[in-house]
Amino acid sequence: MRSPRAELVAETAITLLAERGMRGLTHRAVDDAAALPPGSASNVARTRAALLELTLERMNELEERQFQIVGVPPGPGEGKALADLLAGLLHAQITQDRRRTLARYELALEATRRPELRRMYDESGRRFLEPAVALMARAGSPDPERHGRQVVAFGEGLMFYALAGAGTDPTLNELRLAMTDFLAGLLR
Amino acid sequence: MRSPRAELVAETAITLLAERGMRGLTHRAVDDAAALPPGSASNVARTRAALLELTLERMNELEERQFQIVGVPPGPGEGKALADLLAGLLHAQITQDRRRTLARYELALEATRRPELRRMYDESGRRFLEPAVALMARAGSPDPERHGRQVVAFGEGLMFYALAGAGTDPTLNELRLAMTDFLAGLLR
Repeated sequence: MRSPRAELVAETAITLLAERGMRGLTHRAVDDAAALPPGSASNVARTRAALLELTLERMNELEERQFQIVGVPPGPGEGKALADLLAGLLHAQITQDRRRTLARYELALEATRRPELRRMYDESGRRFLEPAVALMARAGSPDPERHGRQVVAFGEGLMFYALAGAGTDPTLNELRLAMTDFLAGLLR
Repeated sequence: MRSPRAELVAETAITLLAERGMRGLTHRAVDDAAALPPGSASNVARTRAALLELTLERMNELEERQFQIVGVPPGPGEGKALADLLAGLLHAQITQDRRRTLARYELALEATRRPELRRMYDESGRRFLEPAVALMARAGSPDPERHGRQVVAFGEGLMFYALAGAGTDPTLNELRLAMTDFLAGLLR
């Protein structure tokens, strides 16, 4: 169980990553932004690595909560329902969860340079890949493992292109059209 | 025309961004890594903003060179040739150009916080979107503008997922399969 203070430190770190990037995240900046006494963030997570890992843990918890799919997932022939489901998840990530999604991209890049963070990031990545594989299997994909990876990659791309790349934010309807085309190719 | 020293500074900055991230890029680190006399990077690009913009300019030049498609692009009914072409471009970006692709993601995120860098990044993004739209039009897409954006987003996702996300590097053949499925949906 994490203390309320650790939770506040992690939430503040997510905000700082989104607003100021990896350079803007320091123990001191967390104390300042959260209006905590100096040294508070260091008490919770002594090293920079510990602070990043705490932040990723918190982010994973929040995302897992969101990705819990309510009800029965769409089956074969229900491509439209599946496109709607995936478009809705992506739309939430680039609107209400924009801050968290940007912070996750910062951690993903930092993980290319930190083996322990990489391990944690990839482990949480597997927890998102598995539902995608299951969804594709249920929808009738001839190769759910590969198609699950493709769905995740396309989702990453739509989000990154909108939030950080040269694209603009797609509407929910544009995301539905994109997912409809995409799934039509996978579920031929 | 850029001086050889400015080019060396920009190339070194690309390497530092890929290897150490935005925090690891400083004027001093560039001088050190390029074995230049102290103050060299500052002479070429006085501010941090100028250094980032020089780096992005250099990256754009390198990418434009690579994306110049040789020969006649695939036409309607040549979906396989188009899948091969796109898979080959992506494969180069995650293998021989890995350093540059990682550095571009660092700049993309930094551009969310720097309006001038954003403007430059988005302008170069349009120069890559246009050929994608033209390719889709030639291949017989019913909506080349939208499909061009989707191709770019899927490419971004496949690359980001491989290089920084929880995925592993796809082989050229896996990229071909992914692009074949993808184009089959768009060119129904």
